[in-house]
Amino acid sequence: MENLEQQIKFLIEIDKLKTIERKTKIISDSRRENDAEHSWHLAMMAIVLHKHANQEIDLFRVIKMLLVHDLVEIDAGDTFAYDTNGQGDKYERELLAAERIFGMLPEEQGAELMELWEEFENKETKEAQFAASLDRLQPLIHNYLNEGDTWQKFNITSEKVLARNKEIANGSDALWEYAQQIIHQSVEQGILSK
Amino acid sequence: MENLEQQIKFLIEIDKLKTIERKTKIISDSRRENDAEHSWHLAMMAIVLHKHANQEIDLFRVIKMLLVHDLVEIDAGDTFAYDTNGQGDKYERELLAAERIFGMLPEEQGAELMELWEEFENKETKEAQFAASLDRLQPLIHNYLNEGDTWQKFNITSEKVLARNKEIANGSDALWEYAQQIIHQSVEQGILSK
Repeated sequence: MENLEQQIKFLIEIDKLKTIERKTKIISDSRRENDAEHSWHLAMMAIVLHKHANQEIDLFRVIKMLLVHDLVEIDAGDTFAYDTNGQGDKYERELLAAERIFGMLPEEQGAELMELWEEFENKETKEAQFAASLDRLQPLIHNYLNEGDTWQKFNITSEKVLARNKEIANGSDALWEYAQQIIHQSVEQGILSK
Repeated sequence: MENLEQQIKFLIEIDKLKTIERKTKIISDSRRENDAEHSWHLAMMAIVLHKHANQEIDLFRVIKMLLVHDLVEIDAGDTFAYDTNGQGDKYERELLAAERIFGMLPEEQGAELMELWEEFENKETKEAQFAASLDRLQPLIHNYLNEGDTWQKFNITSEKVLARNKEIANGSDALWEYAQQIIHQSVEQGILSK
């Protein structure tokens, strides 16, 4: 019962992820996406797209990683992909957040989630690389369907988009091929500048 | 590549889950919760609370079930737990939705997600029973922390709340004990009428 109360406190705390806004909008409405629904969408992408990974992967681990990967943003906030200043101290800010948030859980369980988060951040395992591919691909699709949205708002060129997203290939060549198609079509349609 | 395009269309379609509002509010803000962030929260509850299940369960299956369980509401809408009229034809409306939405996927994959949804609905396996326990417990915690919220708005008594939620015990006696504590405390605090 002691464990349970500690776990429920954690589950109440992470409700805050629903209030952390990303720069990207959802596809079906004109409002910005929050981290909780984003994490759900990525987990669904993993279920549907895992056969396109470059290597056979542990899908369960990928899904757990995606479900927890943004929890640190409850404290550290969302850092925009193309914000080079923000990217500088991102890891330090997020590490502090991870220690506080995962530290709310019973020790063994907190350590397990911390490990998943670190694995995602380090992008060394094939599972983390595939999870990262999905995390890159999703906002790309959103921007494409939202007529350029954040690309236009922040003057992002296709060169930058290609440079930022080429790591999709580390997890999945097929998804990177698809991503490049989207980027080229966006340039052709005039919603992403060359 | 043909499969991939079909899969991406499905993943774009299910973005709509982010616009389906539940009756329950989130804890950290005064706005209503949407189905996508709700599904994420339940998947996190499964990760954290699975040891409290009555029997050892296949956690991966529980998580997949929770991630897909509300997709049918894209077409069928959210049916409020205490809406007895709405509950009447809920299954028929949702079955049509499941056929359309899961039917967007390559056949084998669509069948797999359909099976997960049906398993959740039928509540016969221990995995489905535990998943259902979490789906009941979460809004209870939200209502407790939101000063009665939907209980007050729709004149729900503690008797109804107990009757509706006692199936939590099918998945987890420990969580049902905890849920009863919350219900009793809500009555004591005057945010749920006897």
